[in-house]
Amino acid sequence: MGKPPEIRVRAEAARRVASGRLWLTRRDLLKVPEIGPGEEVRLLSPEGFFLARGYFNPQSRIPVRIYSREDHPLDRHFLSGALRRALALRQRLYAGEEAFRLVHAEGDGLPGLTVDVYGRAAVVQISTAGMERVREEVLWALKEVLAPEAVILRNDLPVRKEEGLSLYTEVAYGRLSGPLEVRLDGLRFLVDPLRGQKTGFFLDQRENRRFIARLSRDLVVLDLFAYTGAFGLYALSGGARRVFAVERSAEALALAEENARLNGYSQRFFPIQGRVEEFLREAPDAQLVILDPPAFIKSERAREAGRRKYAEVNRLALSALREGFFFTSSCSRFLSAEDLLSLVRRAARGRPLRLLFRHFQAPDHPENPAHPETLYLKGFTFVSG
Amino acid sequence: MGKPPEIRVRAEAARRVASGRLWLTRRDLLKVPEIGPGEEVRLLSPEGFFLARGYFNPQSRIPVRIYSREDHPLDRHFLSGALRRALALRQRLYAGEEAFRLVHAEGDGLPGLTVDVYGRAAVVQISTAGMERVREEVLWALKEVLAPEAVILRNDLPVRKEEGLSLYTEVAYGRLSGPLEVRLDGLRFLVDPLRGQKTGFFLDQRENRRFIARLSRDLVVLDLFAYTGAFGLYALSGGARRVFAVERSAEALALAEENARLNGYSQRFFPIQGRVEEFLREAPDAQLVILDPPAFIKSERAREAGRRKYAEVNRLALSALREGFFFTSSCSRFLSAEDLLSLVRRAARGRPLRLLFRHFQAPDHPENPAHPETLYLKGFTFVSG
Repeated sequence: MGKPPEIRVRAEAARRVASGRLWLTRRDLLKVPEIGPGEEVRLLSPEGFFLARGYFNPQSRIPVRIYSREDHPLDRHFLSGALRRALALRQRLYAGEEAFRLVHAEGDGLPGLTVDVYGRAAVVQISTAGMERVREEVLWALKEVLAPEAVILRNDLPVRKEEGLSLYTEVAYGRLSGPLEVRLDGLRFLVDPLRGQKTGFFLDQRENRRFIARLSRDLVVLDLFAYTGAFGLYALSGGARRVFAVERSAEALALAEENARLNGYSQRFFPIQGRVEEFLREAPDAQLVILDPPAFIKSERAREAGRRKYAEVNRLALSALREGFFFTSSCSRFLSAEDLLSLVRRAARGRPLRLLFRHFQAPDHPENPAHPETLYLKGFTFVSG
Repeated sequence: MGKPPEIRVRAEAARRVASGRLWLTRRDLLKVPEIGPGEEVRLLSPEGFFLARGYFNPQSRIPVRIYSREDHPLDRHFLSGALRRALALRQRLYAGEEAFRLVHAEGDGLPGLTVDVYGRAAVVQISTAGMERVREEVLWALKEVLAPEAVILRNDLPVRKEEGLSLYTEVAYGRLSGPLEVRLDGLRFLVDPLRGQKTGFFLDQRENRRFIARLSRDLVVLDLFAYTGAFGLYALSGGARRVFAVERSAEALALAEENARLNGYSQRFFPIQGRVEEFLREAPDAQLVILDPPAFIKSERAREAGRRKYAEVNRLALSALREGFFFTSSCSRFLSAEDLLSLVRRAARGRPLRLLFRHFQAPDHPENPAHPETLYLKGFTFVSG
């Protein structure tokens, strides 16, 4: 096989590539090649020196994404090496654990690819044409490195449309028809990779849930936007007296209830189906409030409206807490940690809150410092009174 | 006893007090009273409404510090209540642990007072005239709440001079003549409250050391500015193959060696006495480098020189790492987390580093969001290769 087409990039862009940036915009390219979506390219400096390997998509807002600064094709061999390194890191971070994020796209140097592992199943999300082109190689490498019994492709990410890709969910191999049971930090969870949000579970809050478990002994806990109950269950494992889990989706809440039952916590777990904002108009008096809302800001343009929404829901959540702990977070990359902190302080309206801990995404979701976009989850635990 | 003197403050300052700020500058006061250092004051709005209670020091850069927004004297009763609440929080955060920071000054609403607990001993630091005035009440409250066998006053903080206070270290009661043995997270440490740095041990890195322990299995570790070896010992407890601990102070390093012995790690622990910068000119090839330098920036004015020092030591530390993990931190409040991140990226000179975790001070060192100064410790764990 011959070498892929070459693209020369502007000096400025070459410098950014040298410092680890994995994306190139149209302006960075000295000439836009006439090749199809997903094809591999070799990137050269204006003088013709090799810089990196990437893949191209003329339709994308980000026409080139880099997958290596060495001159390898994006093939089985390369992918299985990358997955092996990713796995070794996770086995170090989460030794003995069966659920973790194996690949975090740009954070693992693999743009367009996310893989979550839930026991014997792997859930793959492909978000770019370049990664879609090597879909079979990805599946091959996953088998080689992880030997999962089932692989689910959750390729229903809306962002795929921008890449000209269709949206679909399928079981790529093995069998799966409903939720599967996974053990996490000693707790049992039902995870639904086919119908759940994202890949079925939010592994990114794992360290933060562990922290919450440490705080929870004997407390009455309010878990807002509870989804399938993970924060609440960690709180119960830490000795919480009672957990009230508020969630709008009846399906998610049914799983939460089932999860409470699986862990023997039914007596202390109170599922409440409804909108968080409505529930909070007449809130019980909790001693630990957990606020883990969905991303209210999904684009630059939506920043102001989203910020108001965060402010409102933080204000309401704080009204349910007389004295105790408040965990608040945002998974929107358009809201910085400092933004969140200052809106919570305003929402507290002069009530003194002390800040116990700053939270971010779990370390199996690495940031790439050349891509500030890869930091998306941030949170705080406050103590009041 | 009558009410203490009143001070009216400007409207702007009243607003800051209402939002949790504990310091007032000379400009904030409508009239500077003629009272002595350390005396209590009642703070009023320009209209005469009660705002808070504080203490005054005409000699200080910060003439008023607030200790309560309720109208209590700073007496035994108030102090024992505050210590009781502080202790309850630590018992939650570090259940079953015998060493923790009990009081973190402004972070616990008690300006001028820091208390570290090491088993049956408490080490107290008083940094203001207002707290020095109630020194006996502080000791009484400590006895009441904690019943320690010994209390050490490490009142040798240079900042006391700005308050017109003398510097001294003394055993306020009980007996202590040398290092005491403390158990932390299952490890045994000798801590020297009389002659060690600060109160003898750095509890603020505790969560970060726990994280390092998770990463360490089978790695060759370089612990730079090792002091009494805590990071290295956590790494050994996590299964590190060998730890090289570099420390300039022969005394601190002797304690580190003794700590390694106490935990049965002597075979895998290699103390190296010397300057970190010199040692790194010919560094071994480590797989985990821990860089925990002293504060290189101690004032606003020293920012640029300090930043260069951080940059240099980070560059050298990275040169000792071919592939593996890099923990870097700064305990200077004049260097922000973002500043540290960008100087590390520059120090890496294009070498791709992925960011696994953002670290801050342990939660028994709470931040006061109205006092950004209370966030001082920040760090990052990177993975390279």
